[in-house]
Amino acid sequence: MTEGERDRQLQVLDVDECYRLLATEQIGRLGVNAEHYPLIFPVNFALDGTTIVIRTDTGTKLSAADHANVTFEVDQIDRGTRAGWSVLVRGLAEEVTAEHRAELVERTRASGVEPWAPGEHGHWMRLIPQQISGRRIVPGRLPPAFEPAAYP
Amino acid sequence: MTEGERDRQLQVLDVDECYRLLATEQIGRLGVNAEHYPLIFPVNFALDGTTIVIRTDTGTKLSAADHANVTFEVDQIDRGTRAGWSVLVRGLAEEVTAEHRAELVERTRASGVEPWAPGEHGHWMRLIPQQISGRRIVPGRLPPAFEPAAYP
Repeated sequence: MTEGERDRQLQVLDVDECYRLLATEQIGRLGVNAEHYPLIFPVNFALDGTTIVIRTDTGTKLSAADHANVTFEVDQIDRGTRAGWSVLVRGLAEEVTAEHRAELVERTRASGVEPWAPGEHGHWMRLIPQQISGRRIVPGRLPPAFEPAAYP
Repeated sequence: MTEGERDRQLQVLDVDECYRLLATEQIGRLGVNAEHYPLIFPVNFALDGTTIVIRTDTGTKLSAADHANVTFEVDQIDRGTRAGWSVLVRGLAEEVTAEHRAELVERTRASGVEPWAPGEHGHWMRLIPQQISGRRIVPGRLPPAFEPAAYP
């Protein structure tokens, strides 16, 4: 372990910083309980204020997430410095349907989320955060030792 | 939607390709059920054959994962082409302790996983895959239309 490695720090991020980082990304990972596992699905998302908006097709993601406790994880990792940050949202998901008030449907669609995966993504989901937390690994003063495995 | 966007394809990856991609990464995301949520934790990992080896400290990750159904997700996403791949492992996790046979403990430690986060990571966990699946979004023939939101 070099001196730089020893100086590495783990910082706990405050709520504002978590939301600021969330807004810099377009892809996150939705965690839903289904099929006896805590399944993880990468999804495109956008923010409507502090609400996370996801477009999806019918299937496991949608049926398991609707009205359930879900999580949403976003991270950014730098192999070179072996540093990065991650944010985890715990919240409640619900599908936005025609039964919701028109203003909410409109705001949800206006969030601009656009799926990268081809196919139908006709369903809209809102994830209302109940808790958000994040952490950041800050590299030490010295660059980390060169490690061949880190540069495949 | 441009012609290129229409040409985008979603490919299902076979098991060999999933393991090949898994081996190219050093960070994945562990999914464990705890505190009433499907929690997602970014972790460093290494492979011992097809087994995923993770080092961790005591805490939620370890206590919730030990002898439980967990998942492990790895992905690589390219904002420029709006393409990428993801692999999801469903499996059973167990902590490797002195009660395991010496050969297993040795192989686990020899996997070479090294945590980037500072602090104690004295516990070793093995994740034995029960199912692995993956998909890839292949960009269309034409480059995607420029979208300001994609380049913040």
